[in-house]
Amino acid sequence: MSRTPPSRPSSGPVRLGPQARAALWPVVAAEVTSGFWHERRRVNARVGIPQGPALLEAAGNLHNLRLVAGATEGSFVGDYPFQDTDVYKWLEAASWQLAQLTDDPQDELAADVERIVALVAAAQQEDGYLNTWFQSGKGEGRYSDLRWGHELYCAGHLIQAAVAHHRATGREELLDVARRFADHIDATFGPEGSGRPLDTFDAHPEVETALVELHRETGERRYLDLAAYFVDRHGHGAHRHEAYCQDRVPLREAETVEGHAVRQLYLLAAAADLATETGEPALIEACVRLWHAMAATKTHLTGGVGAHHDKEDFGDPFELPNERAYCETCAAIASIQFGWRMALLTGQARYSDLVERTLFNGFLAGMSLDGESWLYVNPLQVRDGYVDAGGDQSSRRTRWFRCACCPPNVMRLLGSLAHYLASTDGRGLQLHQYASGRFEGEAHSRPIVVSVNTDYPWQGRIEITVEQTPTRPWTLSLRVPQWCGRYRLAHGHDGPPVESAVLDDGWLRVERAWAPGERVVLDLELHPRLVVADPRVDAVRGCVAIERGPLVHCLEQVDHPGGGLDEVTVDLGVPLAVKERPELLGGVVTVVAGGHRRPLPATDWWPYRPADAAGATEPADAVHPAAADGSAEATTEPGAADAALRGVPLELTAVPYFAWANRGSGSMRVWLPTG
Amino acid sequence: MSRTPPSRPSSGPVRLGPQARAALWPVVAAEVTSGFWHERRRVNARVGIPQGPALLEAAGNLHNLRLVAGATEGSFVGDYPFQDTDVYKWLEAASWQLAQLTDDPQDELAADVERIVALVAAAQQEDGYLNTWFQSGKGEGRYSDLRWGHELYCAGHLIQAAVAHHRATGREELLDVARRFADHIDATFGPEGSGRPLDTFDAHPEVETALVELHRETGERRYLDLAAYFVDRHGHGAHRHEAYCQDRVPLREAETVEGHAVRQLYLLAAAADLATETGEPALIEACVRLWHAMAATKTHLTGGVGAHHDKEDFGDPFELPNERAYCETCAAIASIQFGWRMALLTGQARYSDLVERTLFNGFLAGMSLDGESWLYVNPLQVRDGYVDAGGDQSSRRTRWFRCACCPPNVMRLLGSLAHYLASTDGRGLQLHQYASGRFEGEAHSRPIVVSVNTDYPWQGRIEITVEQTPTRPWTLSLRVPQWCGRYRLAHGHDGPPVESAVLDDGWLRVERAWAPGERVVLDLELHPRLVVADPRVDAVRGCVAIERGPLVHCLEQVDHPGGGLDEVTVDLGVPLAVKERPELLGGVVTVVAGGHRRPLPATDWWPYRPADAAGATEPADAVHPAAADGSAEATTEPGAADAALRGVPLELTAVPYFAWANRGSGSMRVWLPTG
Repeated sequence: MSRTPPSRPSSGPVRLGPQARAALWPVVAAEVTSGFWHERRRVNARVGIPQGPALLEAAGNLHNLRLVAGATEGSFVGDYPFQDTDVYKWLEAASWQLAQLTDDPQDELAADVERIVALVAAAQQEDGYLNTWFQSGKGEGRYSDLRWGHELYCAGHLIQAAVAHHRATGREELLDVARRFADHIDATFGPEGSGRPLDTFDAHPEVETALVELHRETGERRYLDLAAYFVDRHGHGAHRHEAYCQDRVPLREAETVEGHAVRQLYLLAAAADLATETGEPALIEACVRLWHAMAATKTHLTGGVGAHHDKEDFGDPFELPNERAYCETCAAIASIQFGWRMALLTGQARYSDLVERTLFNGFLAGMSLDGESWLYVNPLQVRDGYVDAGGDQSSRRTRWFRCACCPPNVMRLLGSLAHYLASTDGRGLQLHQYASGRFEGEAHSRPIVVSVNTDYPWQGRIEITVEQTPTRPWTLSLRVPQWCGRYRLAHGHDGPPVESAVLDDGWLRVERAWAPGERVVLDLELHPRLVVADPRVDAVRGCVAIERGPLVHCLEQVDHPGGGLDEVTVDLGVPLAVKERPELLGGVVTVVAGGHRRPLPATDWWPYRPADAAGATEPADAVHPAAADGSAEATTEPGAADAALRGVPLELTAVPYFAWANRGSGSMRVWLPTG
Repeated sequence: MSRTPPSRPSSGPVRLGPQARAALWPVVAAEVTSGFWHERRRVNARVGIPQGPALLEAAGNLHNLRLVAGATEGSFVGDYPFQDTDVYKWLEAASWQLAQLTDDPQDELAADVERIVALVAAAQQEDGYLNTWFQSGKGEGRYSDLRWGHELYCAGHLIQAAVAHHRATGREELLDVARRFADHIDATFGPEGSGRPLDTFDAHPEVETALVELHRETGERRYLDLAAYFVDRHGHGAHRHEAYCQDRVPLREAETVEGHAVRQLYLLAAAADLATETGEPALIEACVRLWHAMAATKTHLTGGVGAHHDKEDFGDPFELPNERAYCETCAAIASIQFGWRMALLTGQARYSDLVERTLFNGFLAGMSLDGESWLYVNPLQVRDGYVDAGGDQSSRRTRWFRCACCPPNVMRLLGSLAHYLASTDGRGLQLHQYASGRFEGEAHSRPIVVSVNTDYPWQGRIEITVEQTPTRPWTLSLRVPQWCGRYRLAHGHDGPPVESAVLDDGWLRVERAWAPGERVVLDLELHPRLVVADPRVDAVRGCVAIERGPLVHCLEQVDHPGGGLDEVTVDLGVPLAVKERPELLGGVVTVVAGGHRRPLPATDWWPYRPADAAGATEPADAVHPAAADGSAEATTEPGAADAALRGVPLELTAVPYFAWANRGSGSMRVWLPTG
């Protein structure tokens, strides 16, 4: 199939040029105008992003920039060498926000951005280097500790911010700072024999994918080559072959994702960028292989990734714990960035299937409904009697943390979200995610504009109206979500089915000559459902989870008074019901299930006991031989096994996972025992 | 019941004096002469302990002592401020070993001990302070960082070594060093207003229990008071109320064990020591409450404790993961030390039930069969395809680690093990653990000597012969293990039952006038059994484990070629069988079970799928709607659910858990799915 790239580039992230070896390109223009994501983005625009400058001031990030700019006295404030990235991620978020069409005045935001951009510029050194940790003397020896120093990681986020700032505002100031730093890095790092002093890489990837975007923004080939150089250095022992540093094996040889989840996925986003720019088969194969290894064996139901608190890393295949799921919010964001790049590279729907799941669950849970606090860790279970004895942030939302990587990361993804929803390939338009808005693609070098109107994910009906179209036929592609068992595509409301629709590996494709104003309606069946896991996922054996559409649901203690959640079982015999709860959690649709509050075994001093033939438990207090002759008979109580299966019937209220932990910090469960 | 303490103290650890408010006292003399533990102790004596000096030399511990003694040049070698404890724990182990009756020559060991004792003495400062990390300048500021400095923790192990050295050899050199350091600490730490400068405590307990033993050894009351002072300081915020530092709540108010497992249990061992010395009801209640909270909700089947790699801490109640069980070997040792003290304090059998389980499983697995390598972390599962990407030591035995706390800790417990097996109360003798040997207690102020002959835990027959006895009646108490469903006590081999035997909460008591040479035979039924867990232990839902006697068994990959362990299910319908395997793992009894190698669902890109009514799984490749009309029917395959339950029959070989990871590092499972 001949490549027909669109003639005009996107105004969002991942701005592929016509030379890209992509299957799909981001749309030329995208807006979200109402509905679910519009509401979340408005909270981000009105509460999340505006509080940034004050929080960055209070946390010392701006002080550190003034300090190295010579504009203030004192010493570095904070504990981490990567604190500059909080500023850069906020600048990126604010820049994407400034590009939005909105009725809200944004003058104050624009002024904050330009003030902080000027501060960043003033902090940069003559030779282009910029890192307040090392410039302030808090850290010693520029580039002396690339395992922990995070200088290139910081540079990467500076570059991302600069690209966003330039794309959104057309202004050059921050882009100039980024280019000077990038040129400095290019002159400092390079292969042996290149005359450049350092043949190594930053143990925390980010600069790689940023350099590809800088190449796309500036047309400068050197930046692409430098990105490729850094990606290729991984796995050759510069960091003692540590998986944590993404150095255990070269990326093209890796069989699965491993090590620090955010580092792995930022590196893979860069690999997908490079594969898209160069079309290198080995790199494409590695990206496809590693995404599949992640999705099939190392991703939680919520789309969250990263099984271990310890080292923040991926676990073994199918090692997917619930209460100790780390699932850092930043890792969900990294997974979305990697997945979107893979969707563009391959054109396959499955990548956007996982992006959708991650957006609505593992990612969105990271921000409170009011936009004022965040979760760093996103577990799938908080146990009755959970005590945060170690400050592991597993169930408490915090306003801004010592290591505040997540909040501005959430802000920048929400700020640019419209650009992750649709794509074009020069022959039509593909809707990857469903949100009310307007998307402009291209066919036959002519604009295609469609508007979408939907109450998704609460309702399954999606109206797509062709606003602008060439006369010649083009293909509208609608993703049929992987979770969807039944759907219908019709001409207009309750009209006849669209006969020409063809399902093609997750894409429902309609090729036809469209007329302006023509409307098709996709109805996705939203029946709530129970899901189970591969038997190798030991953590959820004997459990089911509740989903509706793209939303994973969970039980929260607050909705189930009278006992703990760990006593609750779900009754598969009771059909799931849906209940609209406009008053709850800002307005959600809950799933109501049947269940029981089971009687727990008498608490003796030992929680393990002999199995009967069926593997059911005896009451704990009957274990110790009570009879003087020690006869085993004396230890069994008739009917005890049956009793252990019974319990008090209970109505279970399952709320969307993204909305959990907005009503205090009680227990929570995604996976529910069936008995 | 009037207290009748024995007139002569024990020669082992926990040397309770007649003033102790104990229910039981360690026996006056104890030997293990043959059988299971004798073999393990012989490996410890011939391989484990003798390699100590060379390993301590290679690791730099002895160099550090010479360095601060001015006997060598250079700088501190190593990464941790507690490395002196490796030396002290080895000295303690070697001292207990020197007290053993053995046919092996021990002159070389005695010479090594005196050489290293002299080196320790030479390293001590004028004022009694001794810590090579701070004396060498590696650490700055004596007592400036009690959260991390470990100075009193090191002092505690020095004191334990000195007490053992004095008890075993009668020599004073090391005891003098310990007393001088203890006096220095006593002059430095004390309550506000006492004129002593520091009102705080070491974040890693150990000095507390050591000071009680020093009090017992020297009769010096100040040491007991200082121990009580340190125990009472915990929980008042000296260490920001961190659970990791055992500072979240005062011990007497704590509802459960929490934080760093070894720290918690060393602190509780001290609390039990103090409760035994003072009889304070509130402290006794706290010890009883916290032991029960640990045993009933935070102990793995192996007796291992500590659920988290991150912070090495206890998890929530019933949070007992398998592959990520931390279960540090040192924590098992600490649990045994706490449990033994509780057994003496209360006289209850349950404490020794858990000590037995921990000894044979969670503790013993920490040393390889050849005594040359150790496990730091003792998981209950190693998954197929496990990759140690993070150096977490979960399945590889290592010779001596950077943080080598466990090996010498194993050595010192094995070296003193005979003293954990029996007790006396001045009215008779109690056998807590069964091993062939000789135990001397007291009744009516006269010696009682019994000899035990058994092949336990391989066989359930235990012969007890009264070697020496007063003419007046006394009570022989035999622990009927909590796991034991059926037993028989007879006069001699296959003689008539002992009619007067009474079962009293785990103790089988026989009060009679004994004649020298009289023998009773206890037969404990050793049928292998399947066990299940409390339903709140989410990690093992739908699983059973195999036990025989006190031994937990596990499957290892090496015994199950032709596929991975994660495909294996156990068939509850097939009776368990026992197979003696003299050629295997130094001679073990295995349990043979029936099972299946189940067919795994086709690996699609997503491991979760809709549940059918029974909660069974559909094949993954049938999830995505394949039909163009997207009908749900198209997604189900008849019989798929049934097929998922079938599999290839397979004979399962379960080896004792203590012997795992002695044949390379393949996958392993303790808990086995039933379907």
